[in-house]
Amino acid sequence: MERVAIFGTGLIGASVGLALRDAGFTGVITGWDKRRDEAQIALDRGALTALTDDPDEAAYESDVIVLATPVLAVLDWMERLAPRLATGQLVTDVGSTKREIAEAGRRLYPQKELEGRQPGTEFLPGHPMAGKERGGAELADAGLFRGAMWLFTPDAERDDRATPVSDEWRGWVEAFGARTLDLDATRHDELCAWVSHLPQMLSTALAALLEERFESEPELAADLMQVGGRALRETTRLGASPYSMWRDVAMTNTKALSDTLLALEQELAYVRENLRTPELREEFARANRFRLRRNESTRSAS
Amino acid sequence: MERVAIFGTGLIGASVGLALRDAGFTGVITGWDKRRDEAQIALDRGALTALTDDPDEAAYESDVIVLATPVLAVLDWMERLAPRLATGQLVTDVGSTKREIAEAGRRLYPQKELEGRQPGTEFLPGHPMAGKERGGAELADAGLFRGAMWLFTPDAERDDRATPVSDEWRGWVEAFGARTLDLDATRHDELCAWVSHLPQMLSTALAALLEERFESEPELAADLMQVGGRALRETTRLGASPYSMWRDVAMTNTKALSDTLLALEQELAYVRENLRTPELREEFARANRFRLRRNESTRSAS
Repeated sequence: MERVAIFGTGLIGASVGLALRDAGFTGVITGWDKRRDEAQIALDRGALTALTDDPDEAAYESDVIVLATPVLAVLDWMERLAPRLATGQLVTDVGSTKREIAEAGRRLYPQKELEGRQPGTEFLPGHPMAGKERGGAELADAGLFRGAMWLFTPDAERDDRATPVSDEWRGWVEAFGARTLDLDATRHDELCAWVSHLPQMLSTALAALLEERFESEPELAADLMQVGGRALRETTRLGASPYSMWRDVAMTNTKALSDTLLALEQELAYVRENLRTPELREEFARANRFRLRRNESTRSAS
Repeated sequence: MERVAIFGTGLIGASVGLALRDAGFTGVITGWDKRRDEAQIALDRGALTALTDDPDEAAYESDVIVLATPVLAVLDWMERLAPRLATGQLVTDVGSTKREIAEAGRRLYPQKELEGRQPGTEFLPGHPMAGKERGGAELADAGLFRGAMWLFTPDAERDDRATPVSDEWRGWVEAFGARTLDLDATRHDELCAWVSHLPQMLSTALAALLEERFESEPELAADLMQVGGRALRETTRLGASPYSMWRDVAMTNTKALSDTLLALEQELAYVRENLRTPELREEFARANRFRLRRNESTRSAS
C-alpha cells in the first residue's frame, strides 16, 4: 500500500490521514471533499499530502480508497467507482450502518470468480466506533481511534488472493490503536441501533424537548444548564451531532432503530407508571446490573 | 457557628464536612448515620470531628444541623427535631426535592412571630446540585461543590433577626466554591424534574432496557459496551445511581416528573415516526440550538 485516497476529509477522514502518518505511513494520501475548504484544512493539518479535483483519477491511481462520507454518499461512490477500478485495489468505508453498504458491495465488487473472470477490486465495509459531537477536519486527531473498536463486516465469500490489500489495511487500522472485530452486517446494524443510534436519538430528543420548553425563556434556560450540571451535560451532549450524518443512519437502519425507539418509549412509560411502586426498585436494580457489567468489561479490556 | 451536626454521612454529608474543614471551619462537626460504618468512614476521612449515638442531644448542642439524607428521612428528622430545638439554631437540608420539605418547614419551623412568641429555630431548605453516580463517604470530596449550583428555597416569611444563622451558613456554602441561587420551592421541583430527574430516569430506563435485552448473552453484552463507546457510557452512566435516593425523589415529585417523562415519550415517538422525513432535520436543529445555548451559558459563567 503506497497510495491512499480519502474521499470525505471531515473529522473521520482527516483523522484517518493523521493516524496513517502517525503510524508510519510514508506514501501518498490524496484527499477530496465536496467542500474544498474542508479538504484544505485537512491538507494544512498534515492529514493529506495532496488535494485532487479529479476523484476518479485519484481513485484509479490509489491502492486503497477510503470512503469517509455519510452512508448515502458512500453508496453513491461505490456505484461510481466500481467500473473504474481494477484487481489489486481496495475500497473501504467508515459508514455508520453496514447492511445496505455490504449488499451494494456484494453486487458491485463481487469477490468470487464470475464466468471465468478474475476477482476484481476488493471491498471491505468498515466502521470505526469513534467520533466527536461535532465534525470537521479542524477537530481531526491522530489518536481518535486509539482504544476504540473498528468493526468490519466482510463478505463471507472471501477472495482467495494470497495477500489481499484488505489484510494490509486491517494491519494499519490496528496500528492506529483500534481493536478490530468482524461481524455480520445485519447483526452490526441491529447492535449499533441499541448502543449507538438509540443513544444518539435519545440525546437529540431530550435536547430538542428542552429547547422547545425553554427557548422562550433564555435566561431561565441558562440557569437550567448550570443547575443540570454533569447529568444534563452528558445526556444531551450528542444533541450537538450533525443531521447530515444521522439522516443517512436513519434512512439506512430505519427498522432496527424504530424498534429500539419503541422499546425505550415503553420502558419510559413503565417507569412513569411505577414512580410510586416497588417496581421502580427492580428497574434501578436492572440498570445497576448493566453498569456493573459495563465496569467489569471495561476493566477486563484495559 | 461553632458546632455543626451532620445527619447522614454519605457522599453529600461527608463532602459537606470535608468542605467545611477545607474552607477553614475549626469547630466541632458531629456526625450520625443509620449505618454506623458509614459514619466511621466519614470520621476516618476527616469529614467529622466526632460521632454520636444520640442525635437528639447532638442536634440540641449544635448551631447548625445539616440533614443530608434522602428526602423522606429529611422530613422525618424535621418532625422529630422541631420540638427539641431553640431560637438561634438553624436546620438545613440537602434534599433533591423541595416542595414537601418547604411545606413542612413552614409548618414545623414558623419564622414569623406567633401569638407573641419569639420566632424559633430557623429552617432553610437547600439543594446542592452535585453528586457522583455512586454514593458513600469513601467517595466524599472537599471539592465536590466547587463550581456547582447550591439552590435554596427560603420561605418568603423571612425572620427579622439581625444576623440569622442562615446567613452564616450561606457564607460557608459560598466558601465551598458553590454558586447559590434562591427560588420558589414548587418552581425548583418543576425545573429539577426537567434537568435532573428526567435525565436520571432516562438513563435508568436505557440501562435497564439494555440489561433486559442482553443479560442472557453476557459475552455479547461485553462487546456492546466496547462498541458503544463514549455515547453509551455517558447516556447510561446515571444508571448506576442508587434507588434509595431516587425513590424519595419519585415519591415527592411524582406529578412534575411524570409530566416530563410523558413529554419525552412523545418526543421519542415523534422522532421514530419521522426517521425518514425532513422533520428529523428540524429536530436535530432544535437539539443543536439547545447545545449552543448550553455552551454559551457555560462560557459566560466561567
